[in-house]
Amino acid sequence: MIKVAINGYGTIGKRVADAVSAQKDMEIIGVSKTKPSAEALIAVQRGYPIYIADMSKKDAFAKAGIPVAGSVEDMLKKADIVVDGTPGGVGESNKALYEKAGVKAIWQGGEDHEVAGFSFNAHANYKDAIGRQFVRVVSCNTTGLCRVIKAVDDAFGVVKVRAVMVRRGADPHVVKKGPIDAVVLDPPTIPSHHGPDVNTVLPHIDIVTMAMIVPTTQMHMHAITIELKKEVSRDDVLAVMRSHNRIGLVQPKTAIKSTAELKEYVMDMGRPRSDLWENGIFEASVNMVGKELFFFQAIHQEADVVIENVDAIRAMMGEVRDPETSIRMTNEAMQFTAL
Amino acid sequence: MIKVAINGYGTIGKRVADAVSAQKDMEIIGVSKTKPSAEALIAVQRGYPIYIADMSKKDAFAKAGIPVAGSVEDMLKKADIVVDGTPGGVGESNKALYEKAGVKAIWQGGEDHEVAGFSFNAHANYKDAIGRQFVRVVSCNTTGLCRVIKAVDDAFGVVKVRAVMVRRGADPHVVKKGPIDAVVLDPPTIPSHHGPDVNTVLPHIDIVTMAMIVPTTQMHMHAITIELKKEVSRDDVLAVMRSHNRIGLVQPKTAIKSTAELKEYVMDMGRPRSDLWENGIFEASVNMVGKELFFFQAIHQEADVVIENVDAIRAMMGEVRDPETSIRMTNEAMQFTAL
Amino acid sequence: MIKVAINGYGTIGKRVADAVSAQKDMEIIGVSKTKPSAEALIAVQRGYPIYIADMSKKDAFAKAGIPVAGSVEDMLKKADIVVDGTPGGVGESNKALYEKAGVKAIWQGGEDHEVAGFSFNAHANYKDAIGRQFVRVVSCNTTGLCRVIKAVDDAFGVVKVRAVMVRRGADPHVVKKGPIDAVVLDPPTIPSHHGPDVNTVLPHIDIVTMAMIVPTTQMHMHAITIELKKEVSRDDVLAVMRSHNRIGLVQPKTAIKSTAELKEYVMDMGRPRSDLWENGIFEASVNMVGKELFFFQAIHQEADVVIENVDAIRAMMGEVRDPETSIRMTNEAMQFTAL
Amino acid sequence: MIKVAINGYGTIGKRVADAVSAQKDMEIIGVSKTKPSAEALIAVQRGYPIYIADMSKKDAFAKAGIPVAGSVEDMLKKADIVVDGTPGGVGESNKALYEKAGVKAIWQGGEDHEVAGFSFNAHANYKDAIGRQFVRVVSCNTTGLCRVIKAVDDAFGVVKVRAVMVRRGADPHVVKKGPIDAVVLDPPTIPSHHGPDVNTVLPHIDIVTMAMIVPTTQMHMHAITIELKKEVSRDDVLAVMRSHNRIGLVQPKTAIKSTAELKEYVMDMGRPRSDLWENGIFEASVNMVGKELFFFQAIHQEADVVIENVDAIRAMMGEVRDPETSIRMTNEAMQFTAL
Repeated sequence: MIKVAINGYGTIGKRVADAVSAQKDMEIIGVSKTKPSAEALIAVQRGYPIYIADMSKKDAFAKAGIPVAGSVEDMLKKADIVVDGTPGGVGESNKALYEKAGVKAIWQGGEDHEVAGFSFNAHANYKDAIGRQFVRVVSCNTTGLCRVIKAVDDAFGVVKVRAVMVRRGADPHVVKKGPIDAVVLDPPTIPSHHGPDVNTVLPHIDIVTMAMIVPTTQMHMHAITIELKKEVSRDDVLAVMRSHNRIGLVQPKTAIKSTAELKEYVMDMGRPRSDLWENGIFEASVNMVGKELFFFQAIHQEADVVIENVDAIRAMMGEVRDPETSIRMTNEAMQFTAL
Repeated sequence: MIKVAINGYGTIGKRVADAVSAQKDMEIIGVSKTKPSAEALIAVQRGYPIYIADMSKKDAFAKAGIPVAGSVEDMLKKADIVVDGTPGGVGESNKALYEKAGVKAIWQGGEDHEVAGFSFNAHANYKDAIGRQFVRVVSCNTTGLCRVIKAVDDAFGVVKVRAVMVRRGADPHVVKKGPIDAVVLDPPTIPSHHGPDVNTVLPHIDIVTMAMIVPTTQMHMHAITIELKKEVSRDDVLAVMRSHNRIGLVQPKTAIKSTAELKEYVMDMGRPRSDLWENGIFEASVNMVGKELFFFQAIHQEADVVIENVDAIRAMMGEVRDPETSIRMTNEAMQFTAL
Repeated sequence: MIKVAINGYGTIGKRVADAVSAQKDMEIIGVSKTKPSAEALIAVQRGYPIYIADMSKKDAFAKAGIPVAGSVEDMLKKADIVVDGTPGGVGESNKALYEKAGVKAIWQGGEDHEVAGFSFNAHANYKDAIGRQFVRVVSCNTTGLCRVIKAVDDAFGVVKVRAVMVRRGADPHVVKKGPIDAVVLDPPTIPSHHGPDVNTVLPHIDIVTMAMIVPTTQMHMHAITIELKKEVSRDDVLAVMRSHNRIGLVQPKTAIKSTAELKEYVMDMGRPRSDLWENGIFEASVNMVGKELFFFQAIHQEADVVIENVDAIRAMMGEVRDPETSIRMTNEAMQFTAL
Repeated sequence: MIKVAINGYGTIGKRVADAVSAQKDMEIIGVSKTKPSAEALIAVQRGYPIYIADMSKKDAFAKAGIPVAGSVEDMLKKADIVVDGTPGGVGESNKALYEKAGVKAIWQGGEDHEVAGFSFNAHANYKDAIGRQFVRVVSCNTTGLCRVIKAVDDAFGVVKVRAVMVRRGADPHVVKKGPIDAVVLDPPTIPSHHGPDVNTVLPHIDIVTMAMIVPTTQMHMHAITIELKKEVSRDDVLAVMRSHNRIGLVQPKTAIKSTAELKEYVMDMGRPRSDLWENGIFEASVNMVGKELFFFQAIHQEADVVIENVDAIRAMMGEVRDPETSIRMTNEAMQFTAL
């Protein structure tokens, strides 16, 4: 059993904790919180031992009825690997701690590539992660881009990718962030950082991205154009997408035309936290014009990287050396069924 | 086993179907849809037989891979009771159908009181529903008001209720309705219809309500003032709320201050569809000023009436004659745990 | 003086009325409303004679203190030209009326090209509109696209245009339309109708568009990629944009990065109704990658077509035969100053 | 001529600057900005001399083409009175500066009462402000409450006020603040600070307020209940409201039922920045139930305090000693016409 610690039990951390717990070859040995909160109470309910960074806050936790198992350092001692789920930019400052504890560590896409020196996507470079001490799982948007670009590139060859990312302003439970009624260019320059970020995983892809933020909480939406090396049919493309185990095709018979309806559908399917782990590509939008492939995909910002973290753990621990084996194990443990 | 049909498998219907299925003394014998859709596919996944109003659409369903078990009339023949989950205003037009089929029927709060001649809330008037053919479960807002007013009235006596209902603009998956950036008075007159609607259940309560709509999808928020017959302490009130099995106290230790954070908490608890079936009263807001009680409560528009429908079924079928027994059965089957 | 009638004094109609009134060679002889409302009261304040379609409603207007000058037919008799500002799809049904009255007519982009058989954009095809009886001014999005594509094509030659239109869900005062929290694909297929609509004005352009709707009211945002016939510098492009009298460059020194901040800036400039008549191209976003030009532009859905209507009137009446003369007359009358 | 400086040319500051400029007995001698921005460019356009707090940034302003007239200290030397429009909480830190410069100063409602020791509302306590060195104009919500409570109290006597304030999440141009899809209790306790804040102006009023924040930018909405000392008719109340020169009645004939439609109406009226300076009371909502008065009022957060600042200036300078004279002068200069 791989012993996994979650440093930062928040939006991503709590999901990775549950995903890890669902795997046969892994277990959660602890999660960390900085203060008592709804999420800390959920960790108690789930039975995850709670560790805290600042032991002077132990009383505050006790007062809230939340038992503290020890410090973050204590947690790291028990772990084979730690998943850092702290807020973007904070994760880097934990590196010394992980080095000192001699523990393997995974950061999220809010950190720069340099924090780990290796950026991960299961379908793209699982094998290169085998045995590594430090790995960064790329962000939700980059993960969604890498999955589909890699698949299309393998199948048909990619000349170039041009993508517009219409991003959610904040996660559903984050009430302080906006915008309320605006489209915000983020960044106001072109290209955005997403293209170079894809290149940390797929260095040879010619990609230019444009990004903006809109007043929604549900999911990101990507409008993607890929120029292929050859002319292929729409059906050829759909076949590639359909056979991919982390791409979901939103079928016309569902009549789903929006992120909100897609989220409802995944909720109705009974998925934990209504999570869409796969790319949600709208089948009706997939089209070829000459050698150019066009499509829309919804990316659930809270979910798609969760399963990548699980695979990263497996790769880094080195026992499962075949990407597809790990991906299948992960998906099956999540009771992942097609859209 | 009580045989239950769901006519209109939508926002409320799909939740009632699952709640009914979870009960030991009930089963779903069929649900109806008007066209193939994501929800129809979910019904297939759940194993609910699907009936359709307009048999000429059978082919459209077949084409979408959705087997049709028969017409709505066929479904009614197999049912002891039908829960009407059709859109507000449509339900009334189904009455003749139910009368002809000789089946018991429950309407939702989108219909007028007169459709059934009896408006239901489990804690308020379960016994009066026993054996009835037709019952209307009051709307989400009215249900939330009735629960807490009834509890406070029983405990301390209510002189009058003044409530402001800040309502969500649309359910999360409804993308055509607004507003996007406005507060809409609905109605622009005072009082709103909610007060008289409470009086269909609790006729003796002096209540004036004011209602508006805001650009959110998550939940309604009620700002409530109740003048009591006597001066009591805040702790007295909290004790009444805490002991109520359909009132949840949002505790300060959760640090939850919004509908969105509350929804996330319920989601994290693993509740199906992140449903908050109980009134979500914010403990920190509960306060007494003289004989006046003030508090905020969140009402999940898609969820609170679901469990009331289950109790209404039981009351109408007449085998369980004690309200508390039914309420406990319903709650337990839902694995309802405290906030 | 060109005598102009406005049939449908709503979002566009009221703006065209004021723009026409500001011109030295035109006057408003009447506007029409279907019922008493805030906008009808504004027409009274502005001194525009009010005509109504259904004379049986004359009393309702009188009761609201709004004098009725006659029927829509009466209005048409006094007009040289009518601007149809009725809701999309309704305009077409008015064609017979205009034919019978022998009046020139302009429709908006909510109608199909076929209603007039000619689609107008001042910079692109003013001369072809000279003397026509019927003209359609293309929609806000198409207008914004035509302006910049035409300018870039004239300067450098366009190989192809790929554009993603992120559209506002509803105008600011429209409270019934959503979405509240979703990105809606509209249409869910690619290409959207905007490309073919551009081709009604600029038939030779290779253009593919993708469109979605987001929960904002302020403006549309376009993410545009144009492949040019030759490699040019970013400064070459900026020079073309800067010298265009209906393109505004949002300068970095304003620190404006969103539609909302841009709207506020235009408001602070004292523009009537905070209207952005020109394309709002974000200077910082303009970039060349090889022969590809990338940029973001904000399109104020209520405003950019207003000035096109004025030019269309002038072209159709035939006295001003030079496009630039008309465009300059229109802009100057609006006291149009650079962003 | 009263020489007025604006320290902090932002949402409130820029409006006060224009309102002051419109008065016959006042002039703007300078405004301050901390960095080059769209608003600084507007100040240039308006011809307001620009002063800066940190002279080391003079080059940055020069680079943006914005001339700097001097430091904030320089500006204060030229002023009789300074209006502090810096962000809430910052204003207090400027007090020493104003004391040192020996200049009269006005703070906004984001500061505590203690900063000035006197809280101002023109209709309530103009005379008490005469000759004062320091005055705080209460916040937009408190201003809106004071106006109507004072008027109703003078006319009929007020027993108690119970008010729910549904507040906008951010101003229209503020894109970083949320919420996007939530109702946030702010504060989560009852009463909110608004009641005590009303008491800084009207100490004898029994008032309890409840406050929340919703995802809109346009205006606040108040749902108000006032228990009167005697039973009066609805018409009696409407007469009081109608005759008040800073209360606007939104008439049923406008068909306006929301903040957004009201904003559009004020925009269409041609008001600068679409500002609603008066309380927007929805006439249809005004109702009496026994001795209780109920109504909804919209409060434009950016506008209602602007005219109060103008009156506060006049009171503090001491030349106009009659409140009604000042209020009339202010309103007339703004070309304030009835809704």
